[in-house]
Amino acid sequence: MEHLKRRQAALELAATAGVDTLLVTKLTHIRYLTGFTGTAGVLLLAPDPLLVVDFRYGAQAREQVPEVPVDGDCAPPRLWATVNDRLSQRPGQRLGVDTRNLTAEQYLALAATVGPDRLTDCAGLVERLRAVKDADEVQALREAADLAEELVRRLPGWLRPGRPENEIAGEIEYAQRHLGAERSAAPILVSSGERSTMPHGAASGKPLAQGEPVLVDLSPVVRGYRADITRTFFLGTAGPQYRRLHRAVTAAHTESMAAVRAGVRASEVDAVARRVLAGYDLDGYFKHSLGHGIGLDQHEPPLLSPYDDTVLAAGMVVMIEPGVYVPGVGGTRIEDAVLVTEDGCVPLTTSDPEIREL
Amino acid sequence: MEHLKRRQAALELAATAGVDTLLVTKLTHIRYLTGFTGTAGVLLLAPDPLLVVDFRYGAQAREQVPEVPVDGDCAPPRLWATVNDRLSQRPGQRLGVDTRNLTAEQYLALAATVGPDRLTDCAGLVERLRAVKDADEVQALREAADLAEELVRRLPGWLRPGRPENEIAGEIEYAQRHLGAERSAAPILVSSGERSTMPHGAASGKPLAQGEPVLVDLSPVVRGYRADITRTFFLGTAGPQYRRLHRAVTAAHTESMAAVRAGVRASEVDAVARRVLAGYDLDGYFKHSLGHGIGLDQHEPPLLSPYDDTVLAAGMVVMIEPGVYVPGVGGTRIEDAVLVTEDGCVPLTTSDPEIREL
Repeated sequence: MEHLKRRQAALELAATAGVDTLLVTKLTHIRYLTGFTGTAGVLLLAPDPLLVVDFRYGAQAREQVPEVPVDGDCAPPRLWATVNDRLSQRPGQRLGVDTRNLTAEQYLALAATVGPDRLTDCAGLVERLRAVKDADEVQALREAADLAEELVRRLPGWLRPGRPENEIAGEIEYAQRHLGAERSAAPILVSSGERSTMPHGAASGKPLAQGEPVLVDLSPVVRGYRADITRTFFLGTAGPQYRRLHRAVTAAHTESMAAVRAGVRASEVDAVARRVLAGYDLDGYFKHSLGHGIGLDQHEPPLLSPYDDTVLAAGMVVMIEPGVYVPGVGGTRIEDAVLVTEDGCVPLTTSDPEIREL
Repeated sequence: MEHLKRRQAALELAATAGVDTLLVTKLTHIRYLTGFTGTAGVLLLAPDPLLVVDFRYGAQAREQVPEVPVDGDCAPPRLWATVNDRLSQRPGQRLGVDTRNLTAEQYLALAATVGPDRLTDCAGLVERLRAVKDADEVQALREAADLAEELVRRLPGWLRPGRPENEIAGEIEYAQRHLGAERSAAPILVSSGERSTMPHGAASGKPLAQGEPVLVDLSPVVRGYRADITRTFFLGTAGPQYRRLHRAVTAAHTESMAAVRAGVRASEVDAVARRVLAGYDLDGYFKHSLGHGIGLDQHEPPLLSPYDDTVLAAGMVVMIEPGVYVPGVGGTRIEDAVLVTEDGCVPLTTSDPEIREL
């Protein structure tokens, strides 16, 4: 049911753009619009839609998407040629293409086949729909968030001096499979000691050590939907300098979360976190965005950054993840997903953001 | 040293194509040419090269690529704008672009900035170099293959009736981390019973059951290089129909591997496997390619398929993976990587391909 509603909404947007058939080439868009979970395919979205997949996914596509005709017999390298062939059976139509999810080679081939004048750039069209989550999506995001929280609860049992960061990532992978996650959306970040100052510190062979912080960033996927949570641990007792960093990040997290509600611009929420950190003279160490939308993709619009003036709407789910990374002292970040409502927001993960000393 | 040699070889190919600066936009190409392992960046390959990354990777790029100047201060969403800006400082140059690894949006922006006449399509240029592995690469591929074989040795201890496929995948993930793998290159395939007839059967919640085959396809990554191996297990004693499938696949595997040597066309090797399976009347159930190159990517040229007439060369590393999938009987596949030599090939994985009954 939801898939049909979503396709109708996308068709309305396409019609507004003057498009007869929208070529949907991003796999998570195809999943959003149809439920198909294969790793290759193109959806021709039109009043008479067609899902083109290669033979590996023919049976799966027919099972997952019974209400859309499936062309599912070609060899994998012939997928794009098959799409071009099927489009040639729609002469004179205006085609919407997603230039962010089409290679230059595919675009140039298509322009050569149907003529560049028949192509309309529809980049961002499905993203706009996807930014506001429907009830099914919120439910899946909640399940992923709950699973992530369970992993956070188990983490203290795994963190011990001498164990390599990689092994902690292995524990997380094993446990999340056991709990029902499909996989990690992104590399699991386990960064200890000075490595915690790298905002993207994927787990390495470095052993955890007494007297060091450990930053853990998890992203289990449940039914395609992603969770994302970061918490900070400390082997021993954190010193005053590190505590001050974490206090500043906690304040930025609390105050920016309090600023989230429908009608506020994404950039304004980001600005709140930056202002709080400036009060601690730490804004120079907060170099990434405050957050991003999340759903079937790890990073979706809107971006909570100085550069994105999107007005937040009820039903959006965005990350709030301020962090500071100070060489010689350490790095710390607190990250939670929140569901935007008319008058505020509801966090999907709520475990204590304090430094957990072990 | 190897990175410098590879860059020189790529520059020679670019010069032959009349190109002054080659925009390298595929991350594994950038890793191959420089050693940079970050998840975003663009290499301007020229006699005066420049590696453009965003601030998250500035320090890492300078550390990993000391011999190439790094522009590493921009915000992540500004990366492409920074590249365009830097290109505008190279007026009049002919630019080589990789249309398979550039979005249509990026291509159109670039064409608008510098004029489409200054762009030359260099798709496949770096792939041609990468198809033949150098000594460093063969060493890394061997390490990954050895790790994959160790996992295959451990598998019998994990496979028990009642355990879900997902849990086996979890065991594999945990063990491969412990053994030094970075991650799995592709979803771990554990497909049992009727699910084994799906060539791409990612581990599911289905419990293993007595009297059923279990197909396991592993792909641990070591230092960026990928292994890929498939073996077949059986909980109990396989029946004659299933044994016959496996016998046919074993013959196809042995004979196609014997056909590999420098100077033979990729399509000829694929044809050998198809001919053997036709002798068993099973060629209709072998719907995928016989194999593909492997290296920093899971699927690299050449493709051992009816459609690829590339002449094999010494130093190529290709997969040999015949499989048949018969609904109602089961699926089986044997997959190994081989290093092509002047007069044959050397398999990188050699564990017994027989059905392992447990």
